[in-house]
Amino acid sequence: MAARALSLAPSLSLPSAITRSRAPLALRHLLRPLPRRLCLCLAAAARAQAHRPRALGCPTRHRGALIRGAGGAGGRQGGELGRRGSAMASSTNSTVAAELAVAAGRSGGVEPLPFVNDEHGGVIIEMVAPMDPGVFSASLKAALAKWREQGIRGVWIKLPITLSNLIPRVVEEGFWYHHAEETYLMLAYWLPNSTHTLPVNATHRVGIGAFIMNDKREVLAVQEKSGVLRGLGVWKFPTGIVEPGEDIYAGAVREVKEETGIDAEFVEVLAFRQSHQSFFDKSDLFFVCLLRPLSYDITKQDSEIEACQWMPVEEFAAQPFVQKHELVKYILEVGLTKVDKEYGGFSPITIKSAFTDKLSSFYMNRRDLDRASG
Amino acid sequence: MAARALSLAPSLSLPSAITRSRAPLALRHLLRPLPRRLCLCLAAAARAQAHRPRALGCPTRHRGALIRGAGGAGGRQGGELGRRGSAMASSTNSTVAAELAVAAGRSGGVEPLPFVNDEHGGVIIEMVAPMDPGVFSASLKAALAKWREQGIRGVWIKLPITLSNLIPRVVEEGFWYHHAEETYLMLAYWLPNSTHTLPVNATHRVGIGAFIMNDKREVLAVQEKSGVLRGLGVWKFPTGIVEPGEDIYAGAVREVKEETGIDAEFVEVLAFRQSHQSFFDKSDLFFVCLLRPLSYDITKQDSEIEACQWMPVEEFAAQPFVQKHELVKYILEVGLTKVDKEYGGFSPITIKSAFTDKLSSFYMNRRDLDRASG
Repeated sequence: MAARALSLAPSLSLPSAITRSRAPLALRHLLRPLPRRLCLCLAAAARAQAHRPRALGCPTRHRGALIRGAGGAGGRQGGELGRRGSAMASSTNSTVAAELAVAAGRSGGVEPLPFVNDEHGGVIIEMVAPMDPGVFSASLKAALAKWREQGIRGVWIKLPITLSNLIPRVVEEGFWYHHAEETYLMLAYWLPNSTHTLPVNATHRVGIGAFIMNDKREVLAVQEKSGVLRGLGVWKFPTGIVEPGEDIYAGAVREVKEETGIDAEFVEVLAFRQSHQSFFDKSDLFFVCLLRPLSYDITKQDSEIEACQWMPVEEFAAQPFVQKHELVKYILEVGLTKVDKEYGGFSPITIKSAFTDKLSSFYMNRRDLDRASG
Repeated sequence: MAARALSLAPSLSLPSAITRSRAPLALRHLLRPLPRRLCLCLAAAARAQAHRPRALGCPTRHRGALIRGAGGAGGRQGGELGRRGSAMASSTNSTVAAELAVAAGRSGGVEPLPFVNDEHGGVIIEMVAPMDPGVFSASLKAALAKWREQGIRGVWIKLPITLSNLIPRVVEEGFWYHHAEETYLMLAYWLPNSTHTLPVNATHRVGIGAFIMNDKREVLAVQEKSGVLRGLGVWKFPTGIVEPGEDIYAGAVREVKEETGIDAEFVEVLAFRQSHQSFFDKSDLFFVCLLRPLSYDITKQDSEIEACQWMPVEEFAAQPFVQKHELVKYILEVGLTKVDKEYGGFSPITIKSAFTDKLSSFYMNRRDLDRASG
């Protein structure tokens, strides 16, 4: 089943900076409460609507989203087209609301579901307030029927963990799980009679390993309290997992500080390793980072680290474990080549999207670029 | 809430190849049905047990897992310790089964839940067969009480989408969502009175962009049917998302073939870009790949690609869109530096873990390594 989501993912071309740079905007609407003044305006606008949706179980920020979100439909075109799209989608929303209100009579209990239009011709429902499962089912059926008529494509439903009782009702309608975080589950459905082009879930965790050497040719080495090497007296490089939303260079500096107390400056990504089936079928990208120490007194982290020291690199390299472990051998090789000879790793610069103010980090071989440009 | 999982993730040091190389093993037990002969042995063993767990709703592969999984408890120590751990955990499992059987009398309906021990002092329950929610709740409460006494740490519950009716019962016990894929939800809980050290969910999607030039200094360029550039006549590099379990170099070759029909050979990763909030708060790693064309006749993919051509690189670079888009400008710069001058990117080699037969790809600046080694 999973393959279904995957094989189609490329058609969204998410990695294109262009598409991706806009993607989060619609979602931010969901998360950002409206300023009070705007809420009042929206409330007034809502009162003025011929078919005003019943707002039961629909908190202000969603009434807001319901109307604001309409703009999202045209977001993809941008500019003037965007405004046209917005007008179109506003009428769409009020029509849906109207239909739901009418349907209420038939189905004996239908409520408008809080949704926003996304930028790909789909809608995103974010449930926040509890709803009777029966009423929720009827409301969802009515909305799906309407959206199918209107040619809506993807339908997303975000359910907080507090509303897990609604999950079976969503699954009944043919939705599948897209992803989950600690506090919510996101379900997805594709209305057209075609294979879906919804983006895949995240596939990788990102980790770092730190090669950090002082001017006595000692590398910073640790023994971990957990893992297969626990209790075996093996010295390894500090490693860690980059936190969500954290840059690789920042994660490397943070991990070294947390595990060893050493302040360090990020220099370069010297190499990276991609592996699969790392945890629950997920993949892993592990970046080998060269750091320059800014302090030398070790304060080890007791919870994770058994021991920590500045260790002569030859002694580190002589460990039997290093000899039989290709990853560690190569980390040593690129690290020492960088320190002793000539090795061009990737260092980051901050770049800006052409379409939003969003910044990202671009890692490249700047030494060679600088040489080439004379 | 999410921060809770995150800030603690490093303590598992998952990116360490050592830890990670073993991690998937316990999980494979879950997925691999037992050979028939082993099942018979296990059935016999089960019959011989004083307190035989009722196997209702517990398919063979889980009876198997119940016993096999016991070995996992000692997996972390390995060797002799591993065998000791195994014995210990076997008795643990049968004790739990016994307790559950006894508890059945009290709670009026408790069934053993199919579980395996993981390699970190925790257990993984994988539900497959339907179970009455009330019985499931009682069984889970009884198991958690027992595991708490025994000092079990993390508890994982994998629920297929077909058993979504059980999710509220798991959430009632204090579990949170760890991750979800199309067909299942994984919930997690931490029994000790301490902050958990369970690994984080996947945080990144991985995409590729292809810089591919023929000997007439023409780059392979496409116009996409979706995205913000749709209909604007902008030419871009082929991009795509790497599929789960797919290597970056393979994904780049596949995407180029799918979108343009061009056969190409992977040469190097020239750079990469990390960005955040790319989709539903997830981050994105976008690898700029240099490919060498092996064929030249274009067959564009109608579903995603509006147009495709070999385009003189100067013409490509002259597009206003390229001028104002830093990412594309840098892709051009590193690509042309590689082609015309000297630029060391990262190329992959296959490396093997010291602890399993698992292979992974290590990307590094091989040109500089070769030069250094003379």
